[in-house]
Amino acid sequence: MRINKERLKNSMLEIGNIGKDPTGGITRLAFSPEYNIAARRLSQMMEAAGLEVKQDRLGSVFGRRYGEDDTLPVIMFGSHLDTVKNGGFFDGLLGIMAGLEIINTLNDLGRTTKYPLELVAFNAEEGSEMGGTFASRVMAGLISPDDQYLQEHLPEYNLRPEDLAAARRDLNEIKAFIEVHIEQGTVLESEQIPIGIVNGIAGITRYKVIITGEANHSGTTPMRLRKDALITAAKLILKIEDIAVELGEPFVATIGTLEIKPGAVNVIPGEVELIIELRDLDQHKIETAGEKITSYINQLSKDIQIEKIVNKTPVKTDPGMANIIETACKKLEIPGRKILSGAGHDAKEIARKVPTGMIFVPSIAGKSHCPEEKTSWEDIYLGTEVLLETILSI
Amino acid sequence: MRINKERLKNSMLEIGNIGKDPTGGITRLAFSPEYNIAARRLSQMMEAAGLEVKQDRLGSVFGRRYGEDDTLPVIMFGSHLDTVKNGGFFDGLLGIMAGLEIINTLNDLGRTTKYPLELVAFNAEEGSEMGGTFASRVMAGLISPDDQYLQEHLPEYNLRPEDLAAARRDLNEIKAFIEVHIEQGTVLESEQIPIGIVNGIAGITRYKVIITGEANHSGTTPMRLRKDALITAAKLILKIEDIAVELGEPFVATIGTLEIKPGAVNVIPGEVELIIELRDLDQHKIETAGEKITSYINQLSKDIQIEKIVNKTPVKTDPGMANIIETACKKLEIPGRKILSGAGHDAKEIARKVPTGMIFVPSIAGKSHCPEEKTSWEDIYLGTEVLLETILSI
Repeated sequence: MRINKERLKNSMLEIGNIGKDPTGGITRLAFSPEYNIAARRLSQMMEAAGLEVKQDRLGSVFGRRYGEDDTLPVIMFGSHLDTVKNGGFFDGLLGIMAGLEIINTLNDLGRTTKYPLELVAFNAEEGSEMGGTFASRVMAGLISPDDQYLQEHLPEYNLRPEDLAAARRDLNEIKAFIEVHIEQGTVLESEQIPIGIVNGIAGITRYKVIITGEANHSGTTPMRLRKDALITAAKLILKIEDIAVELGEPFVATIGTLEIKPGAVNVIPGEVELIIELRDLDQHKIETAGEKITSYINQLSKDIQIEKIVNKTPVKTDPGMANIIETACKKLEIPGRKILSGAGHDAKEIARKVPTGMIFVPSIAGKSHCPEEKTSWEDIYLGTEVLLETILSI
Repeated sequence: MRINKERLKNSMLEIGNIGKDPTGGITRLAFSPEYNIAARRLSQMMEAAGLEVKQDRLGSVFGRRYGEDDTLPVIMFGSHLDTVKNGGFFDGLLGIMAGLEIINTLNDLGRTTKYPLELVAFNAEEGSEMGGTFASRVMAGLISPDDQYLQEHLPEYNLRPEDLAAARRDLNEIKAFIEVHIEQGTVLESEQIPIGIVNGIAGITRYKVIITGEANHSGTTPMRLRKDALITAAKLILKIEDIAVELGEPFVATIGTLEIKPGAVNVIPGEVELIIELRDLDQHKIETAGEKITSYINQLSKDIQIEKIVNKTPVKTDPGMANIIETACKKLEIPGRKILSGAGHDAKEIARKVPTGMIFVPSIAGKSHCPEEKTSWEDIYLGTEVLLETILSI
């Protein structure tokens, strides 16, 4: 291998442990102090690798390396620096540090690529009030400055509409985008193949649901007179599972947050707010699920509001890029296979506008977004070597 | 009437609006700044009424009025000053301010009672980490200083075991206890009777349940491989409702709090913690429900822990006291009826050790623990007048 394994591992440990929880997970939430510390340190490491570094107002870090013809558009690669709450070490981090490693490897080799290179660490890829893949969508011009929901939430992160405009890039300046990422599933591990060449990424739709009941004293309201919002929520949760199973794989539906108001042991739940997330590679199946859920809600109670807050359609990655990655694997004699991604990624958003490729490495037991998230260092080295070869081949 | 309606209403408004939420509810949580402000102002009003006022380390306020024979034990009356989150105006407050009004009325009339009188405003009657009716249980010696659960939570309220010992009273000093309270149910309103003479108070058992699932990325874990703690919780919520309906009135079961970990839109719930509350006038029915729930949990999953955190048995109030209240109603020609209480009260705890009576007034639409909680001022005046007559009759 041409990459320096030790250097890659050390740089991952240095940035990846910022935000480590006492329980062993990583909490480096978008816009948090931990995120900012990591972005600062990463900028220093990128500068040390000779990159011209800029951080935009959304907190994403960009580092540019000159090309043989510096007037050509850049080949961009990287991933996201933020994590979920008590999440894993590798998610997002890998794509950034693999990118930094290949910059350092090119420096070691004294190689200049034809196109300039640009390493990126995006902010706010994980689900937040902004809906996930926030910074990459802004960069790719995929967010309307008129988006009402977003405008309402910008002040929570001390952002103004002008900041979004400033973070948008002219996509003619980007030749291609490549992201290395952990699979977050079990396909590669079960087939013992170290490289996945992503050819499609699932769409994500999220609904906010507010169920209104009647808050009342728990000791004096007979069961028959109650309007308990949590019992209605329980019915909805089970129905959504039924709908998901019935639609069949790869469709998935998840309720990951649920809040009760007022939320006291001796008060009947007067309101429940929850978020339903639907994912599939087929937008039609997501819409069918949305209709089934809405229809069930209408028959369950008239006191339920449902609002679509996120709607990101599925995306196919660029076939040309997939071929280049496949050829790189063959040349390096590293086994690879085409794969679909169930998770959303920055690459998915960018793929709508720029030829995009994505390289997966195996997740042990498929675990992700949790402290147990793990990928073997050997697979990380292989994935990084494939990234290097891919970039040299463009 | 002998009481001063205007003075009673004004004093209720003065104390009762402390902790008012923007939404119209009252949040005067135990041990909160709002509670402390209310306790301070109440102490001043009690001193102005000529009482000898003391506040104990738990935050309860006591005010003593001399008797004809000041060596006799006191007749104690009052209720609690704390509220639930976004709760109602009348719950607790009424019993305290009715008590203050009769002190002022006795002052107006120049009357001294045979026994000394003592007005009390208890802290922490509502559900908290302490399990509800905290201060009254401590006063009555119903809390063991060795209680492990309690000891663990004392520091959260800046309390030490010595403070509990100091707040305990010699019950030989208390001749009787009387509490005026809103019904928090619909019996009196539906029968248009202004006074309820309580002859029994429901027992309360609470269980803490922790359901362990597997936190994982929502986009990459197929439905068939998930261990979603929220889906298990939903099954349990619906089963508990079934059990409650089957056991029949007045049995009620409530899940008022539920927390998901990690609680992110794109992570499968890895843990759910919830609290189940069971109430009935028959301890045997509460135990039967507990067994049915435990048995269902055992068949549902081996990854559910259930722990009983509160177990307060039902109590019958003192028949002698009930007769005195009934006689007072007859003498005043105010309609009254015997009634059972579904809610826990300070009086319920004290009744285990001291002859205790309880006077209910109607709740409009039975609403309580919510901003809509309401009782007509006319019924409040009637309840206070009955309290005055009861105390004069002992």
